[in-house]
Amino acid sequence: MGVLETIRARVAVREFLPEAVPEASLRRVLEAGRWTPSQRNRQPWHFIVVEDRERLRQIGALAPSGGYIGGAPLAIAVAAGGAKPPVFDAARAIENMELAAWEEGLGTCYVGQIDRDAVKALLGIPAEMELITVMPFGFPTPAAKGQTKNRKALAEIAHRERYGAPWSAGKG
Amino acid sequence: MGVLETIRARVAVREFLPEAVPEASLRRVLEAGRWTPSQRNRQPWHFIVVEDRERLRQIGALAPSGGYIGGAPLAIAVAAGGAKPPVFDAARAIENMELAAWEEGLGTCYVGQIDRDAVKALLGIPAEMELITVMPFGFPTPAAKGQTKNRKALAEIAHRERYGAPWSAGKG
Repeated sequence: MGVLETIRARVAVREFLPEAVPEASLRRVLEAGRWTPSQRNRQPWHFIVVEDRERLRQIGALAPSGGYIGGAPLAIAVAAGGAKPPVFDAARAIENMELAAWEEGLGTCYVGQIDRDAVKALLGIPAEMELITVMPFGFPTPAAKGQTKNRKALAEIAHRERYGAPWSAGKG
Repeated sequence: MGVLETIRARVAVREFLPEAVPEASLRRVLEAGRWTPSQRNRQPWHFIVVEDRERLRQIGALAPSGGYIGGAPLAIAVAAGGAKPPVFDAARAIENMELAAWEEGLGTCYVGQIDRDAVKALLGIPAEMELITVMPFGFPTPAAKGQTKNRKALAEIAHRERYGAPWSAGKG
């Protein structure tokens, strides 16, 4: 499956089968994060892989919108520091890891609401680093994998030469 | 070429051949941005496609670290608004567009230093939106395509269960 096809097919997954994430797939997800471009090649990211069931449950309890982390077989906490601000670079790594996970048959989801200070303490993440998110990973349930997704039409978001000059009036 | 392979192979491109970006490839790059996930599916992004030579030259002159935009056959300004902050979602769209471009044989590069207010005025981007960056696009010169890239080892950035517990001590 090519890149664009993967981007189109991938959906946010919040329900996981109990099967463990294969070590080889985990490594490929981490490699996708590692090879991400960053400003001035700072590579500000750290990836903390969590598979301990009790620790996963604790993280899930600390995420008001991401309790399902507690039901995932694995999670990766993404922390970043040293870049100002690190969120741009970290977001690119997260996107790459999501796509690489999908290529492995795995699902994940961005979790926004997390008690970041508590999770940092739980995982021993240095105070000067920012916890960007915790991504759950696992094989999606059939229902989770079968979701559809909606996006605005290209004509709503693409413009020619100037904002407001519609894409459809272009040479395409 | 698969997703991880593309992530590993892609390099930042700042030197472009004069050939125009094919319309079909441009559309696929825009589709990659369009199908990106975003927080609460807000899709805060707008993509302004610039091919006018004089406008490209003007943008290049407004980018202290990105003068090469003036030598690219095409650029896409990425603006975003309505998300708080929109940079996380926009960064994911930018990453997807970079990967989809590489799949089309095209190169691009993140440009950090831009006179954003001036470029917003030039392109008619509404004041309440944030200009994230302007991405140049084109076919890379052989030298640009042949670059190597360096990244930290996985052992430096990946951890098991807790920050500082080295990846290499894991079951992998």
